[in-house]
Formats: sequence, structure tokens, C-alpha cells
Amino acid sequence: MVKVGIVGGTGYTGVELLRLLAGHPEVVVTVITSRAEAGRPVSDLYPNLRGHFDIPFSEPSLETLSACDLVFFATPNGTAMKLVPELLERGCRVVDLAADFRIKEIPLWEQWYGMTHSCPELVAEAVYGLPEINREAIRSARLVANPGCYPTATTLGFLPLIEAGVVRFSGLVADCKSGVSGAGRGASVGLLMGEVGESFKAYGVPGHRHMPEIRQNLSTVAAQDVELTFVAHLLPMVRGIHSTLYATLTADTDLQALYESRFRDEPFVDVLPPGSHPETRSVRGANHCRIAVHRPQGGDTVVVLSVIDNLVKGAAGQAVQNMNIMLGLEETQGLQAVALLP
Amino acid sequence: MVKVGIVGGTGYTGVELLRLLAGHPEVVVTVITSRAEAGRPVSDLYPNLRGHFDIPFSEPSLETLSACDLVFFATPNGTAMKLVPELLERGCRVVDLAADFRIKEIPLWEQWYGMTHSCPELVAEAVYGLPEINREAIRSARLVANPGCYPTATTLGFLPLIEAGVVRFSGLVADCKSGVSGAGRGASVGLLMGEVGESFKAYGVPGHRHMPEIRQNLSTVAAQDVELTFVAHLLPMVRGIHSTLYATLTADTDLQALYESRFRDEPFVDVLPPGSHPETRSVRGANHCRIAVHRPQGGDTVVVLSVIDNLVKGAAGQAVQNMNIMLGLEETQGLQAVALLP
Amino acid sequence: MVKVGIVGGTGYTGVELLRLLAGHPEVVVTVITSRAEAGRPVSDLYPNLRGHFDIPFSEPSLETLSACDLVFFATPNGTAMKLVPELLERGCRVVDLAADFRIKEIPLWEQWYGMTHSCPELVAEAVYGLPEINREAIRSARLVANPGCYPTATTLGFLPLIEAGVVRFSGLVADCKSGVSGAGRGASVGLLMGEVGESFKAYGVPGHRHMPEIRQNLSTVAAQDVELTFVAHLLPMVRGIHSTLYATLTADTDLQALYESRFRDEPFVDVLPPGSHPETRSVRGANHCRIAVHRPQGGDTVVVLSVIDNLVKGAAGQAVQNMNIMLGLEETQGLQAVALLP
Amino acid sequence: MVKVGIVGGTGYTGVELLRLLAGHPEVVVTVITSRAEAGRPVSDLYPNLRGHFDIPFSEPSLETLSACDLVFFATPNGTAMKLVPELLERGCRVVDLAADFRIKEIPLWEQWYGMTHSCPELVAEAVYGLPEINREAIRSARLVANPGCYPTATTLGFLPLIEAGVVRFSGLVADCKSGVSGAGRGASVGLLMGEVGESFKAYGVPGHRHMPEIRQNLSTVAAQDVELTFVAHLLPMVRGIHSTLYATLTADTDLQALYESRFRDEPFVDVLPPGSHPETRSVRGANHCRIAVHRPQGGDTVVVLSVIDNLVKGAAGQAVQNMNIMLGLEETQGLQAVALLP
Repeated sequence: MVKVGIVGGTGYTGVELLRLLAGHPEVVVTVITSRAEAGRPVSDLYPNLRGHFDIPFSEPSLETLSACDLVFFATPNGTAMKLVPELLERGCRVVDLAADFRIKEIPLWEQWYGMTHSCPELVAEAVYGLPEINREAIRSARLVANPGCYPTATTLGFLPLIEAGVVRFSGLVADCKSGVSGAGRGASVGLLMGEVGESFKAYGVPGHRHMPEIRQNLSTVAAQDVELTFVAHLLPMVRGIHSTLYATLTADTDLQALYESRFRDEPFVDVLPPGSHPETRSVRGANHCRIAVHRPQGGDTVVVLSVIDNLVKGAAGQAVQNMNIMLGLEETQGLQAVALLP
Repeated sequence: MVKVGIVGGTGYTGVELLRLLAGHPEVVVTVITSRAEAGRPVSDLYPNLRGHFDIPFSEPSLETLSACDLVFFATPNGTAMKLVPELLERGCRVVDLAADFRIKEIPLWEQWYGMTHSCPELVAEAVYGLPEINREAIRSARLVANPGCYPTATTLGFLPLIEAGVVRFSGLVADCKSGVSGAGRGASVGLLMGEVGESFKAYGVPGHRHMPEIRQNLSTVAAQDVELTFVAHLLPMVRGIHSTLYATLTADTDLQALYESRFRDEPFVDVLPPGSHPETRSVRGANHCRIAVHRPQGGDTVVVLSVIDNLVKGAAGQAVQNMNIMLGLEETQGLQAVALLP
Repeated sequence: MVKVGIVGGTGYTGVELLRLLAGHPEVVVTVITSRAEAGRPVSDLYPNLRGHFDIPFSEPSLETLSACDLVFFATPNGTAMKLVPELLERGCRVVDLAADFRIKEIPLWEQWYGMTHSCPELVAEAVYGLPEINREAIRSARLVANPGCYPTATTLGFLPLIEAGVVRFSGLVADCKSGVSGAGRGASVGLLMGEVGESFKAYGVPGHRHMPEIRQNLSTVAAQDVELTFVAHLLPMVRGIHSTLYATLTADTDLQALYESRFRDEPFVDVLPPGSHPETRSVRGANHCRIAVHRPQGGDTVVVLSVIDNLVKGAAGQAVQNMNIMLGLEETQGLQAVALLP
Repeated sequence: MVKVGIVGGTGYTGVELLRLLAGHPEVVVTVITSRAEAGRPVSDLYPNLRGHFDIPFSEPSLETLSACDLVFFATPNGTAMKLVPELLERGCRVVDLAADFRIKEIPLWEQWYGMTHSCPELVAEAVYGLPEINREAIRSARLVANPGCYPTATTLGFLPLIEAGVVRFSGLVADCKSGVSGAGRGASVGLLMGEVGESFKAYGVPGHRHMPEIRQNLSTVAAQDVELTFVAHLLPMVRGIHSTLYATLTADTDLQALYESRFRDEPFVDVLPPGSHPETRSVRGANHCRIAVHRPQGGDTVVVLSVIDNLVKGAAGQAVQNMNIMLGLEETQGLQAVALLP
């Protein structure tokens, strides 16, 4: 059995990691840290875990963490970068679910995240953990930067178009909608059900941290600068992201064939039949990204619909997928449950 | 007191007309028709109306309807066109909340609505009832085609840009999201709460009937063909539309000033301060359209956020606004209630 | 015009008072206080009020408040009792929407609310503001204690049975469910949409502050001790309370006639026809309490279903109703809007 | 591998059976019938099953069904009784998820279900499939009547009290709330999201089919007649049942110890620590029933809170549990997934 630890287990990505790892046949969770809840049984905070995990939250400690084969960071941005260097040194491998190692350009990261990076050299080493583009590099990585939720849905949705070079690399639009669990479990008036229930709004239109991440992904794939507009919206529901993507075709292409061919061997990307409209519930609790591609009225605008569960393929599930790859396990282990529908 | 009738009072636009007219000081509803519910008190079907309306639904009859000064049609598409000619002949004025008289190009209408139009000559006469562009024509109209919900939010959102000619007239994107009440009250598996609750999806991407309507509006304003992509989505909530609109700027413009100036005298269009993100709940139950305009990172893409209540400014409220204009009443009468927030 | 002030205008009862008073023809709101938001326009925090209120929040001040004819306290428990004595002395009349003056037995209040009462003599003077039982006393009251939301729905539901003495005065059960707006607008993890969306639970079963209030109401009406079990639950929605009430019949009675007769002259209590099941949406935004009474299978258990909007008849609407009575205005003024359905 | 068939695979219990059986290591689903959808791939109707089930719906046929070791009926009431006799004769074992075999008293069944029973002799033979009371009988049963959703949550909640005889056997109250998926997937105005979203109501108060079932369960356990009042309510959410149960204590008892002891060996009943309030989300997608027991203010009323997922322990999960017992498999196989929270 592989021993894994989780730093910051009280948030939604933490409990989701525990849910997924509870069903993983090759892994045992030996440490879950939380300063605020140290000593409290995990299943006291999350009763769905009763009978599955008996260990309590503990204070983060280099000793106990470095005894793990792999450590997940499910912490706020800026926490992982302080602990990761020493863990790597002690031979631990790391998957960071926060944003500390996602952006290669340090000044850009510092500008968007409002802090100084404490280990830029590890950013260079870190592998961006989107298996659909980086599987081989992930296999041998010591440190994986797990992608953001919007970037996952959006990058996978645009990927075949960008790789094939059949759209303009400017004027892309990513109109994305997320359930509230994507915003985390911190106390805040803006996320009260009284504020966001039965209502809908955009947020962060002037600038959202996931924009530079998406842009980096697409530009890397295109090997040239890709320019896009990204707008995030908050859905009155708990789980699920729907990215509606727009691009201008520059070449006549069989889009359906392009998508099916690109993702044929991907275990977690599912291209729906022509004319489909994926629902977020079709991936609730599952690690899949389901995609449909449209060309309305045969015009030159391609519309891609891409859905994920923001806590699974958009966070904890992708982290487990990365762990599986890193450890040489079957990539789909622990990730085979059917989505909860209805 | 002005006497008004409602044909097809059992759907959501019907009950919403009744709610608004209950508080209108100059109007009395004398007839509400429904074949299916004839004889049943209105307040039996809609208990919120108890104490406000005592009349029962009745079979539609030319006699009783033509005794009204004005008749609203809150019927499925294709019903109004059969009754309207005779009502007009008898001196009644008409506001049709369905789509029968919205599209000027008859073959286009017949293609999208799948039926033959029975009175094309009235389509030519009908005035498209968006007061913000047609107020004067509405004043003297015998027949007003009340706009669709998506077209209202979308047209108002794009209007200043198109009028000012500061964006490209092609490649426009309207990414629109609606609460389920926009789909009406007919029994259908696809609208069960078990199907659409706690989930999100796009629909009608290959083609949606509101697309030609929006395109007609924008092209009329531009006096040239405007080309756009329109994608509708279903929100897991009851009321509210949010249109997120994208266009490419062709001229440097003070967008905030442009919008504020365009709508300064409009009683029901509210331009929010710079940096705002309108919530659909801010217009729940109210006849307002609230708009914010953004230019993310100073690029050449303008992003407009436009919200309405699909049943009010998107249907019944706008119909009452048109009625007020047609009858020479104060335009805001019966429409002054504050939106229900939270 | 009557001048009114609101202390603590930033919570949900505050904004709801503003919504209702915006449509009140005899009242002008001259002061809205908030320490945290002093200086900020009210409509900046609550965009639904744009165009209706231009005044900013201000620091609470005895000067400006005492210039009002009547002051509403929409503050946390324990705030009103500190300011009310001086306001009354200066001739102001007061409606307290919190619990400071609801419980007549001071030690009981101090036990449940965990603080020492600073003006017990005013508790004795205060009139409990449920017009359906205290209308005459309210008329001349200087200080009205506006009832809690659960107590309003529950007391009105049990009232005819208790008054008529046709049920046992022990073993009553009040199983009550509330939308989340009843819990206020304070930042708290437990009220995040991520925590309470798409889920349901009871809370406060060992003891809830509204229990002694309900018990005091029923015991006062019965003129003897009434014993009940009260359980509160949190609904995954924003507005609405549904009380399901159980009592054991001790006399054969025409329950429908009893209820209709008791509430015949009450403008805001609506007894539905036999066999009805009131929906919370039938009172959304309205000041009505709708009630249905059942006797399943003709047994000796009576089941009463009672719904209100917790922010209207359960808080701000009832406060306005009390104000109308206190000031000699028409009791229904400003409260005539039709509930928002759907 | 055990071969199982599902009759009526298009409803919510059908798709939930498929979801659970997809993860069951000892079972293969060889037939899924649906007259309406015959020929259509299962995963076309339910995209969450893509990649898990490739078989299409087929017309129900005795030939193909009787080739199964066990057949589940996920059909409307009255369907199973027509096919079951012949299937049993051919050696198939059957779990009926509908109500055909639940009520032992045939005239009572015929009264509540409004039809004549076609095989009363099988009702006598059928075992009521609540493993917590009938495990041994289920083991050897040919035909299991899978319990209703409300009866499961309610019977388990009352069970220790009734068995121990520490409460009065009359005057029991079961106030139950269910998500909309419990009402099935048939087209109906009353279950549209526009009708039931953001609202709450009771239904069936004069009489609900689950009442005689609950009463039969409790009376059987008590070996005497038990009288209760049962009220069902519809929650504005998709999955989950919460039963709030009230009984009058007749003996002083350590309730917590009573419940813990009764369910200590039950793999799917979880008694929470004293003072707990179970949330429906803590069992979403899982086969658990979580229970808390309270005695508010030390009075003589006991309040039990019992939650299940209506589609899992309330339907498909319990059916799989019964299948496991019938086939001599590990009782928890295929049912070990952690509930989806948030």
C-alpha cells in the first residue's frame, strides 16, 4: 500500500480527496493535517466519512508528512510553497492542488496572486498536471501543479482546435459557469445561500486568476501567444462547471472527428455524439470531462460545451489521477465510480 | 378604468400579468380565458391571487374579448394570429406576448416556427414592442409584438454599441442563461426538477428561435446585417435571465459614458457603476434591466452583463409597459415595485 | 407623511423594510443606520433599491432617530434595549424586530438569550405585536415587540384550536421548516450555499429560542400552561416558513368552520379550502399567512399547515402592519402586493 | 458472475440500480427492459453511464428475463404482479422495488392502490425487504418486496423505541420530507422545477400510500396495533429524505444506548453521537441511514431524526443489499461508496 498525506484537509478539496481515496485499493491515507481542527476526528467534521476514516486531523509536521510516499496540498494559495522544498528534499513526491506552481512566469504569478514566490526554482521544475497534455512528464515528476477547475474544463475544450490550428488564436471567448463549491468553504457573506441561492451573476470580469493559467496552457500548446476573454459566473448549485467556448474557424474541418480522434485514448475525456448538450450532472462526483462540439448554422464560429465536476476533474479527482500516474498505478484506479444522476 | 382581457391565462406569463395588473390603478381585468380551466376560479389555480381576483377562467369568446379596450395574448405561438385580425377589426388593441408578430420576414418566421402565417399583412403593421427603441410607434400601434425574453436582455445590452457603431457587426457572441420559468408550464420530462435541479446545460445550440429575432433587432438598429452567435443555457432556478455579451471594439470609446447617456431617460434600464456585476435577483419581480459594461484588461473585447426577470421585463412587465404607452398612461404605472431581494 | 427610521439596515429584515416602505404612500424613511456601512448609499449594498432610496447609511444617533415618528430596530438581539428607553422618552414610538421585548418572564429571557436585560420595566409595557391577538393594545402602544418568524406561523396555526379549547394542551408538536434568509446575513460557514444547498436538516432540537416565545403565546391564549415540542429545520431555499402542526382533538368540531370563522376579518390570514396544501411560494414577498386544516382519516389528530414569508409576515411585513395600526393608518397600506409566483 | 435483469430501466430507480451495479464486482446486468425506449442504448438516455453500460433497452421478454439469476422490477405499481409468477416458476428470484408485494392485507392494498391484486398468494410468500428486521427471511426468499422510501427512513427511526416498548403505541407522528426524485420521472406539471423550485409544501395529508406500509411495519414489530400520523412534504432539492419522528416516552430509558445497541451490527444504519442533526447530504448516493435521537429539555417526547437517500437506501441501494443477502454475497458489496458531500 502506498502511504499518502493530505495537508489542509478541512476544505472541500480535502474532503473530496478523502472520499476518492477511501475507495482506492492501493492507497492508505496516513496523515490529514489541519491547524484549526487538530485532534478532531475527520468524520466528526464530515459525517459522510464515518466508518471510512478513523484518524483525526493533526498539526502539520514535517516528520509525519515526510513518512508518506506522496503528499497532497489542499491548502490556500501560498502555503504549499513554504513546505514543499523540504518535503521534496526528504524524498516525498507532491501534488499541489493550489496555484503555487501553476504559472511558469514568476512575475506574472506574483502580480495575480499578490505575494512573493518563495521557491521560483521549483516552479521551473514542477509539471503542470493535466494528463491529457503532460502524461509522460507527470510520470517522473517529483512535483505536480494540479490545474485549476476553470482551466481544466476550458483547456480540454479548446485543445483539439488549438493543436490542429484550425481557429484564430485571438478573440477566443471562454464563458464559464461554476457551482459554489469552487469558491471554497471559508465564511463569507458573498457565498451565503441567502446571497447566491436562486440568483446568478458574473464575477471577476475585470480580471480572474484563472485567465493567465488558461492563456499559458493554450499558448504552450499553440507555441505562440493565444489571446482570450474569460468570464466566470456563479451558479446557484453546489457542484459542476460548464465552459461554453467560442472560436473562429480558419479552416473547414470535421470537428466531430477532430475531437473524437484527439480524445479516443483518454480515459476521462468523453466526446458526446453530434448535437449533444452535456449536463453538469452527467459528471457529478466523477472524474470525467464531457465535451460536445457545435458549428451553429454552419457558420465560422465553433461552439464547444465542456463540463466537469469542479471538485473531481477540476481538483481532487485530477489530483488522484496524477498520483496514479506518478506512482505507476493504473491511471483510473479509485476513479471509476459512475456520476450521480439525478 | 381601462378594461383589459387576457387570452391564455394559465401559463406563467398569464399569472404574472395578473400579478402586475392587480396593482395597476387604472386597469381592470374583465376577462381571462382558458379552454382547459374554463369555470375554475383563477385564484384556485394560483393561490397568490386569492383576494385579488375573483373571476373564473372562461372560454375564449370574441364577444367578451372585443368588449375590452386592450387584449393580451399569453398563448402558445400560432394562437394569436387566428384571433387578432377580428379583434383589431372590432376596435380592440392587442399586445401579443408570443412570437406571432415579431419577425418581419414571413418565410424566416415560417421556417423557425414550423407553421404557415395566417395574417402576414398584420406582421407588417405590428410594432415590435421594445419601448427603448420603438416608443413612439408603440404609442399609436393597434398591435404590438411583445419581445422575447432573451431578445430583450440581449438587444438592450448590445444597443448602445450597435447604435454608436463602435464594434464589429460580426462575430458578436450572446451567451445567455435563463431560469426555468422561461420554458413555460407545460408538462415535460425535460423540465422536471429531478432533471434540471442542481445541474446546468446549454440547449438549442444548433439553432434557437430567439436568434433570428435578436439578429433582426440588431440589424434594424445598425441598418445593415449584424451577425451573431447565440447560445441559451438553463439555470437551476426559477426566474431571471443573464446575458453575457461579447463584441470587438473598433473605436476607442468611453463605454460607461456611452451606456449611461443612452439610457439616461429610460425608466426601466439601469446602467450600474463601473466594475459592477448585476445579479438576477436584483430585478426579481421588477421590470428593470440592469446592465454593466466592462473592457477586461483594456483589450479590444467589450463584455456587457445584462439581467432581467424573464417573466417581467422579458414578458408580462414589458407587456404592461407597452399597454401603458399605447393607452397614454404613465409608462411606469403598475411597474414600480422593488425587486424581491433576497 | 410619517417619518420613520431604521436602526440596523444592512440585514435581510432591514432591506425588506426598505422594500416595503418604498411602496408605502404615507411614510418616508428619513434615517437608516449602520455602523459598518456608514456613508455608503443603501442602493450600493442593495441594488434592487436603486432609484427608490438615495440616502446613505448613517451612524446611529439619538438626534436623528428621535426626529422620527417611529423607529424600527432591525438589529441583533440585545441592541434595541440599550437605545429604546431614551427614544421612548423623547416621544418616539418603536417597533423592535429582534427579541428584546418578546418574553415577559425576564429570567426566562435571560436564560435563553444569554444576557442580562437592561430595561425589564419596558418588557412589561411592550405589546407583543401579533395583530391577530393584540390589535387593540398595539394601537396605543409606545413599544411593540415584533414576533419571531416561527412563532408567527405557529401561533396563528394553533390559535383557533387553543382559543376554542378543542385540543389537549400538552403533547402539541410544531415541526417547522424555514428558508435560509431566516438565519440572517452574517458570515458563517454553516450558512454557505456549499453547506446548505441541496440538503436538509433539523437544528436546535435540544432547545431553540423560539420555543419559549411560542409557548408564552399559546399559554396566554389558553390562560393555562400549554406544553409543546418545537423542531426547526433548514430548507435549501431562500424565503418561506412552513409550520406543520399536530394536536390531539378532545372534542368533535367542524375544524374548517372554526378556522374560517376565527380569521374571517383578518386581512392577512387566509384559510384555504378543505383538502388544501399551502405552498410557501404562495406568500413569497406578501404579508399573508395561508393556513389549511386537516383531520387525516377522521382520526383524533388534527394537522395544521401554516405558511408565511419569514421576511414579511415573519418580520418586516408584520412590523409595517404594526406601524400602520400604531399610527392609525389603514392596516393593509404598503402590504397589498401579490405574492411572487412562480 | 451473477446475471441480473432490470424491468423498467428508464426511471430514477432504474438508472440508480445501474449506477450501483456498475461497481458491483460479482454481478453483470444482462437485460434492461423498457417498452418506450427499446433499442436505444442505455447510456444515450443516461450519459453518466457512458463507458459503463453498452447494452440497449429491450422489450420485456420472459425468455431473456428468466435467463437471469435475479430480476429487479423498477416499474410502476401493478406491473410486477403480472410477470412475477411466471418468473418465479422458471426459477428466477425477484426483488420488486414497487409496492405490489409490500402490504400483507390484500383488501387494504387494493383500497390504497386502486386495483385488484392478481396474485395474492405471492403476497403471502413475499418477504418485506428491510434487512434490519428480516435478514434471515430474505436470505432464502424467492420474492422480496423492497420497502418504500418513507417507510424505510421512518421504520428504522422508530424501530428501537417500538421493539423496546418504551413509547406509547398511539399518537406517533412522522413528519417526513423528500427530495423530488422520490416522485419519479413522469411528465407532470406538479413536478416542474417552475412549480416546486424555491418552494415547500406538504402533500397527501388526507392519506398517503406509505402510511399503511409504515403502520404494518411498526405493528408487526410491536405485535399489536400501532397508530401514527404521517405527513409527507416535498423539498426543493433532488435527493434525500428526512424523517422527523415524535413519540411519547412511557419509561425512562437511555435512548442513545438503546439506539447504539440496536444498530451496532447493522452495516448501513449509523447512530450519530448525542446532540447531532443528520443532514441528508451525509448519505447522498450512499446506502446509509443516519439517525440521531433527542429528548428535548428532558421532557417525555422523544424526537428522532432519520435520513436516507431516497434512491439508495430508499430504493435501489436497499434492493442491491437484498440481492446480496439473497445470493449469499457479502451484504455490503457494491454499496461501499462514500456519500457525495458537498
